[in-house]
Amino acid sequence: MNSWQDSYAGRRVAVTGGLGFLGSNLAHALAWAGAEVTVLDALVRGCGGKRENLEGAARHCRVVQTDIGDPEETAGAVEDCDIVFNLAGEISHGRSMTEPERDGEINTAAQLRFLGLLAHMRPGIRVVYAGTRQVYGVPLSLPVDEDHPIDPVDFNGIHKYAATMYHMLYSRLGQLDAAVLRLSNVYGPRMALDVPGQGFLGVFLRQALLGEDLGVYQPGDQLRDPIFVDDAVDAFLAAGAVPTLPARSFNLGGGQALRLDEIATTIAQAAGTESRVCPLEFPQRAKAFDIGSYVADWSRARRLLDWRPRTDFATGVERTLAFYRDHWETYLPASGALCTVAQGQ
Amino acid sequence: MNSWQDSYAGRRVAVTGGLGFLGSNLAHALAWAGAEVTVLDALVRGCGGKRENLEGAARHCRVVQTDIGDPEETAGAVEDCDIVFNLAGEISHGRSMTEPERDGEINTAAQLRFLGLLAHMRPGIRVVYAGTRQVYGVPLSLPVDEDHPIDPVDFNGIHKYAATMYHMLYSRLGQLDAAVLRLSNVYGPRMALDVPGQGFLGVFLRQALLGEDLGVYQPGDQLRDPIFVDDAVDAFLAAGAVPTLPARSFNLGGGQALRLDEIATTIAQAAGTESRVCPLEFPQRAKAFDIGSYVADWSRARRLLDWRPRTDFATGVERTLAFYRDHWETYLPASGALCTVAQGQ
Repeated sequence: MNSWQDSYAGRRVAVTGGLGFLGSNLAHALAWAGAEVTVLDALVRGCGGKRENLEGAARHCRVVQTDIGDPEETAGAVEDCDIVFNLAGEISHGRSMTEPERDGEINTAAQLRFLGLLAHMRPGIRVVYAGTRQVYGVPLSLPVDEDHPIDPVDFNGIHKYAATMYHMLYSRLGQLDAAVLRLSNVYGPRMALDVPGQGFLGVFLRQALLGEDLGVYQPGDQLRDPIFVDDAVDAFLAAGAVPTLPARSFNLGGGQALRLDEIATTIAQAAGTESRVCPLEFPQRAKAFDIGSYVADWSRARRLLDWRPRTDFATGVERTLAFYRDHWETYLPASGALCTVAQGQ
Repeated sequence: MNSWQDSYAGRRVAVTGGLGFLGSNLAHALAWAGAEVTVLDALVRGCGGKRENLEGAARHCRVVQTDIGDPEETAGAVEDCDIVFNLAGEISHGRSMTEPERDGEINTAAQLRFLGLLAHMRPGIRVVYAGTRQVYGVPLSLPVDEDHPIDPVDFNGIHKYAATMYHMLYSRLGQLDAAVLRLSNVYGPRMALDVPGQGFLGVFLRQALLGEDLGVYQPGDQLRDPIFVDDAVDAFLAAGAVPTLPARSFNLGGGQALRLDEIATTIAQAAGTESRVCPLEFPQRAKAFDIGSYVADWSRARRLLDWRPRTDFATGVERTLAFYRDHWETYLPASGALCTVAQGQ
């Protein structure tokens, strides 16, 4: 139970990308807290959104299928909102490298149109944007705080950073009141295990559930700090509810710096299938935009939002696997023959 | 005479935005140096390009009127190039605030398509991009070096920075070999004095030539380090010719930190007209994206490109005024009734 949830009763909130992994978990939490939730989602193929993600909360949410880059469709959905959680976007780094223009349209151009609309219709509104650690590129040192230089190594990072700058600029102009949460790898129920490009944690979870081997890109000692989705949701709730934002950007991490091979082993063992953890050569095409190790310094969020990750990785993995076992038909692909993605994404 | 000019004889170079102020001065220098120059320019209304800018060099330049965001039109123009000087774009900060989507299309989306085309057709080609000091936003301290945090205060700065990141990413991937020159305010012959939004130096020059008063946004002690266009051209020639780029980004400044009221006074006195320098209240709409004082730390360019600004401001202003007196009909508007722009831009 998050201490901020009380403040959402009766509030009118919009969640863009609300049929996606993180967005739908947030919508569940908001509905549970008594908010009037409007979910906007274009269900863009490959972005991981699905209507089943709202199962159990659907009757508390109004779902508007719209591209946030289309002002006409979007205007009616946000005209009476008090808070916007802005999570719509493409998260695949790999796909951004093969289709950079598509990524730019979804993550940058559409965001500009959406924020321009919001600033016009709901001037000064609180917006909490799902940013990414990818904007920092290869960390110069660990852990990474919010003052780390910006140096993205893929188009996705560039486009998400441009959208970040839009949020900042509109806030500087007093037309929006935005917070940007820069997330490490998030995992948990409702990840799109059946969609490629959604990150290595989803790949490992799928492989473990299907009893396939988990291939770890070598050397395997790359660090990540996975965040359980409920903890990420807590940060969104905090940033949306705090009366005055004491800063605009916040790094969020899971609180444990884990090696890729440790992560794989934890998942494989928890699954209890025949999966083994195997070394895998780092593919050249993925190496080009690999960032090595990443661990977030989330002390600003702790200090200013009273936030901290509460779920240790082993516990989060158990809960996640339990969810998928209960929802196998919806989330697991018929065959395990999906392409994998660059690990560490 | 620039020491790099020798290296351009017979080289096939493309200049995007080559009918604009800076681009045309560069095209002149390249033609004079014996390069085979292809000028690409869409002559986008309001961006300051005009065919008359190539007067005296036109027969040494192939001019292709094309939008660099249109791969089909552009491909033929760059297919055999050795070096690309990438200066196409919109420079008006003020217009970017009223038409952010237009600015994003010109300065970001079109650049992505252009660079993708270049990386495909001419992998590894040297590209020298005209960046801007505007990406730094309000300086935290002076002078500003290349490690200063990125924090643009207008859409133009955001979009130019996104394009900067494209250049950097393609270079990291080995698909381009790009340098980004971050320019302070450039002035000199061929500025579009008859087009609004091209910066305060053009406004002052036009007012002084027409005998109008020069209004200085108060308090008037804001610092700028104007670069004479020939010095900026020298930096482009150096960055295009150096065999191996020792860095990717370079700040360029004019070498003198001058107050706005000093700048106005120097221009008014040199013009010898009846113009006076008058205080002017800072307009609220422009204040929102004012950056205060800016002075570049150009020591990296001095150290690694052997570049330095050679033209002091008084001399540059004299040369500029002389050019316009000789080309009055082409560059001065019939009436002085153009809207002014935010000073310091």
